[in-house]
Amino acid sequence: MKSYRKELWFNIRQRRAFLNITRLIQDSLAESGIKEGIALINAMHITASVFINDDESGLHHDYEEWLEKLAPHEPVAAYRHNLTGEDNGDAHLKRQIMGREVVVAVTEGKLDFGPWEQIFYGEFDGGRKKRVLIKIIGE
Amino acid sequence: MKSYRKELWFNIRQRRAFLNITRLIQDSLAESGIKEGIALINAMHITASVFINDDESGLHHDYEEWLEKLAPHEPVAAYRHNLTGEDNGDAHLKRQIMGREVVVAVTEGKLDFGPWEQIFYGEFDGGRKKRVLIKIIGE
Amino acid sequence: MKSYRKELWFNIRQRRAFLNITRLIQDSLAESGIKEGIALINAMHITASVFINDDESGLHHDYEEWLEKLAPHEPVAAYRHNLTGEDNGDAHLKRQIMGREVVVAVTEGKLDFGPWEQIFYGEFDGGRKKRVLIKIIGE
Repeated sequence: MKSYRKELWFNIRQRRAFLNITRLIQDSLAESGIKEGIALINAMHITASVFINDDESGLHHDYEEWLEKLAPHEPVAAYRHNLTGEDNGDAHLKRQIMGREVVVAVTEGKLDFGPWEQIFYGEFDGGRKKRVLIKIIGE
Repeated sequence: MKSYRKELWFNIRQRRAFLNITRLIQDSLAESGIKEGIALINAMHITASVFINDDESGLHHDYEEWLEKLAPHEPVAAYRHNLTGEDNGDAHLKRQIMGREVVVAVTEGKLDFGPWEQIFYGEFDGGRKKRVLIKIIGE
Repeated sequence: MKSYRKELWFNIRQRRAFLNITRLIQDSLAESGIKEGIALINAMHITASVFINDDESGLHHDYEEWLEKLAPHEPVAAYRHNLTGEDNGDAHLKRQIMGREVVVAVTEGKLDFGPWEQIFYGEFDGGRKKRVLIKIIGE
């Protein structure tokens, strides 16, 4: 069994954003030399997500509006977590909706994807450096 | 390390439905010959889910009502994604609640499940052919 | 390839609670002897979750309030699932928000975590014995 590990670093200026990281994952997979196995891609921070969906700006706008409705940033005093001095209580909730990680099949050296699957980093509390972990195991 | 791959194809007539695919996954696991490892089962389409819960029709009714409340299909004009000509904006949101994939332990050649765990394909934008991917790795 | 399996049993008195199980998972990983690979940690019951977030009591209070807003326990008659004689319809919904499982990279014999990542068992229908499954594969 081979294993491969890589960290991707991001520093997103806006509070919230979705970043397509599919090509970065594909490059890592090529670098790993693994042909058959699985790839885990996860946010290493708890106010961020890694998820798979469509690369369509209208949809991303819909996600942003929907997540703000389900877990609004304001008023920050509505979250007991924010008594710690943070203002990111909402971000911890949004991340649970969008998920921490994806696990993707690796087949013949490629991410084994359906026609529209793309991998995104979802930032819900930007303005600081954060990491995504890629771990690939297989042969 | 052995690896196994299979696609399951579905064409669900209704817009939304939950389909128990546990037996199909069990058959694939038997076919794989893998005794110890893990199985990844994921929707290959971004308006569908694979999830694990109870095979109880009342619960599935509750999921349907709840998802319609959290991300209603109508009015379709409420979703910017639908400006692309689609009417499935809601389906991309529902799928995030229910999840893209499950990872299941394989132990002694069986899905290593608790007493009520069953695997479902969740369709949120039916009327077209869609796939589920099974990838099993282990020995 | 090595594989390791362990069950953790819990009997939580309250209906709902979040329990930090990170140390139990670390102990299992040490016991497994696996240095490189992945660890799957999943609830074996369908009204419970395993998820990764912050060990901060204010946040856990926020999760509790938020989940009760998204899928309230009362009135129990609002859930068709409860016609089966159960009163846990809400728990099946809450568990979908918080997730069934996490997959964690194992690197140099450790859970490969970001600075604040902690693993929690989320109970949404306590008062009975329930299990979490740990499956680790690698070398």
